[in-house]
Amino acid sequence: MTAEYIDIVDTQARKKALKVFREKFQKLIDQIMKGKPPVLLLPKRTLQNTIYDETRKLLLLGPEKLKRSFLDLHEAKKFMQTLLMTRIIYEALARDEYPTIRDLYYRGKHTIIFRDEKGKRHEENTWDEQRESDAVIRDIEVLTGLLREEMLILSKEKGKVVGNMRIRSGGDVIDLSRMGHGAYSIESTPDLIEFLDVDAEFVLVVEKDAVFQQLHRIGFWRKYKAILITSAGQPDRATRRFVRRLNEELGLPVYILTDADPYGWYIYSVFKIGSITLSYESERLATPAARFLGVSMSDIFGAKGKKPYLTEAERRNFIIKAKDADIKRAKELLAYKWFQTPKWKTEIDIFLKKKAKLEIEALAGKGLRFLAFKYIPEKIETGDWIE
Amino acid sequence: MTAEYIDIVDTQARKKALKVFREKFQKLIDQIMKGKPPVLLLPKRTLQNTIYDETRKLLLLGPEKLKRSFLDLHEAKKFMQTLLMTRIIYEALARDEYPTIRDLYYRGKHTIIFRDEKGKRHEENTWDEQRESDAVIRDIEVLTGLLREEMLILSKEKGKVVGNMRIRSGGDVIDLSRMGHGAYSIESTPDLIEFLDVDAEFVLVVEKDAVFQQLHRIGFWRKYKAILITSAGQPDRATRRFVRRLNEELGLPVYILTDADPYGWYIYSVFKIGSITLSYESERLATPAARFLGVSMSDIFGAKGKKPYLTEAERRNFIIKAKDADIKRAKELLAYKWFQTPKWKTEIDIFLKKKAKLEIEALAGKGLRFLAFKYIPEKIETGDWIE
Repeated sequence: MTAEYIDIVDTQARKKALKVFREKFQKLIDQIMKGKPPVLLLPKRTLQNTIYDETRKLLLLGPEKLKRSFLDLHEAKKFMQTLLMTRIIYEALARDEYPTIRDLYYRGKHTIIFRDEKGKRHEENTWDEQRESDAVIRDIEVLTGLLREEMLILSKEKGKVVGNMRIRSGGDVIDLSRMGHGAYSIESTPDLIEFLDVDAEFVLVVEKDAVFQQLHRIGFWRKYKAILITSAGQPDRATRRFVRRLNEELGLPVYILTDADPYGWYIYSVFKIGSITLSYESERLATPAARFLGVSMSDIFGAKGKKPYLTEAERRNFIIKAKDADIKRAKELLAYKWFQTPKWKTEIDIFLKKKAKLEIEALAGKGLRFLAFKYIPEKIETGDWIE
Repeated sequence: MTAEYIDIVDTQARKKALKVFREKFQKLIDQIMKGKPPVLLLPKRTLQNTIYDETRKLLLLGPEKLKRSFLDLHEAKKFMQTLLMTRIIYEALARDEYPTIRDLYYRGKHTIIFRDEKGKRHEENTWDEQRESDAVIRDIEVLTGLLREEMLILSKEKGKVVGNMRIRSGGDVIDLSRMGHGAYSIESTPDLIEFLDVDAEFVLVVEKDAVFQQLHRIGFWRKYKAILITSAGQPDRATRRFVRRLNEELGLPVYILTDADPYGWYIYSVFKIGSITLSYESERLATPAARFLGVSMSDIFGAKGKKPYLTEAERRNFIIKAKDADIKRAKELLAYKWFQTPKWKTEIDIFLKKKAKLEIEALAGKGLRFLAFKYIPEKIETGDWIE
């Protein structure tokens, strides 16, 4: 089995990751060689140690660290799991493998049989659920400072992109303006993409895949020089990293278009601030400058000095009554610091008062040209977004 | 608003669909012009009228027809819904729109206010749920003989493809062998794709997106001259139509790789036979020649004259215990005629006896090279599949 089809960019990424692994774990080897009890020190991935950095506008891991000792009975299993997973990932890197988080779970899953000091036989599984092995992978990410993508770990990806730009990926040059009616599926390892040339003025991220296809088909991105992206629901890591890179490296403003409901707002929040469970990734994956373009409550109901985009009759037909779960979720969002700006408070207050939500598709139902050639460009032009 | 970015292929598709609409509904207009009560006659989309054609190996609509009269009080609403949706789709076609099934629901959703013979005011919604408007769209599909894709109705799509072929879509020529680490997202209207040149020997459809990415990244399709596709779970219509066209027009054999469980078998069955609720589409979307490559029960446990691909220890670590719902589903599948072949009966019997299921990822966990360069090619080479 040769590596004849393996890309040089991947090989370089592997070398870099292998080097980091060797450096990080050398200390542990030194401890063992010196006869000292082996101990791992890693940042704590807990809610208490997740902080919102108001200056950088990012969710980040705090300064708290965690000690994991091999010789502590309470920590021995976690210690073993961490080293087991480290070995599996290291081997996969060295052998030109591309594991997924699911198969890493399988690779490590086995039963350890041992006898205690009284000679009694015990059985202990390395892990039972993927939840456990995933947590171990996250520990290794914070321990090494490498994202799993940098360890060539692949995952299911839903993100798509079209627009006036060319990229290099895996040795190919891909023209994202020549995708026909289809689109380019963003790879699992967006850091390995090279941006070649870009003729675009902004990035528009659409929550709904079907709406992305509508805007693509009607020629939206060509007309307005946009990079058009869909996250197809809750964004995966690759889509977030790709959007971040477009913003950071190319200086393109990023607008997010979601349904007008707490679920849509949370999608925006994940793009902008990061997610609470993966706060250690925000520094690389979040786009603090991302703007919530809509659909906003003032688009639906109007506001001081702003006419609504919907008529009374359209509101009657298009609005969906908020469910109890939506109301509950909206109240939770209000508790997050980054939703405590005047504009967001107004937005959420109107939602809680009207108990009304709206899908982007309702605007396409009013007319695809209305959505593509009036609503979106007008909102961008007049600065009618929420930071 | 001009149609400057609209593709000529789309325009031709619209013209064709508009013509069919005019022809089909002319009869209705004639009835009305002659003062006759308007009646629609359409094939019945019911389970009773869904038949399995054993010769063609397809689920098809039977011969039963349904009458829908405007002047029958029980049918008037359905009649109105059908004509309302027909009008909306016709207008969207004529206006170069690209509706989705979700926005068609919004486009038609409104309240009709009327007074009865006693002067009492009534309110009636055209439809309340998308379920209703979707059913009406299906009625229009069987009535016109046009698939919704031919009416330029778009939908969320998950299917991806890479391989040694070039296609033309929306005026662009796309080289599916130059997608880098990403992939090409199949469009909503795969009939508008033109196959330009193909250098491939078979089609491999993988249920799981992450496994698709692994096989892509390791160079599987290059090495074995495959067109590699993922349905990312239960296949959507576009992926099914794309696979069917590859089989029918290019004569490529199609292999389906799913998890070894009733859910995976059903995915295979939808590709091959069609789905029960959408049996009228099978004739265009199903691929009766599709083969179930695996993962099969004999791959896991072995069979007469066949060594299993897994060792005893691997089975212990990789197998997942079947749930009650899996058992129930397996028994249901046994009732379908197309699962009543000796090979499928054996497959399902072993499952029911062992109560064991297995994910494709377990094979990748054993080693990606094992999956890509041994398991798949060996099974294809030795004809170890189920029809």
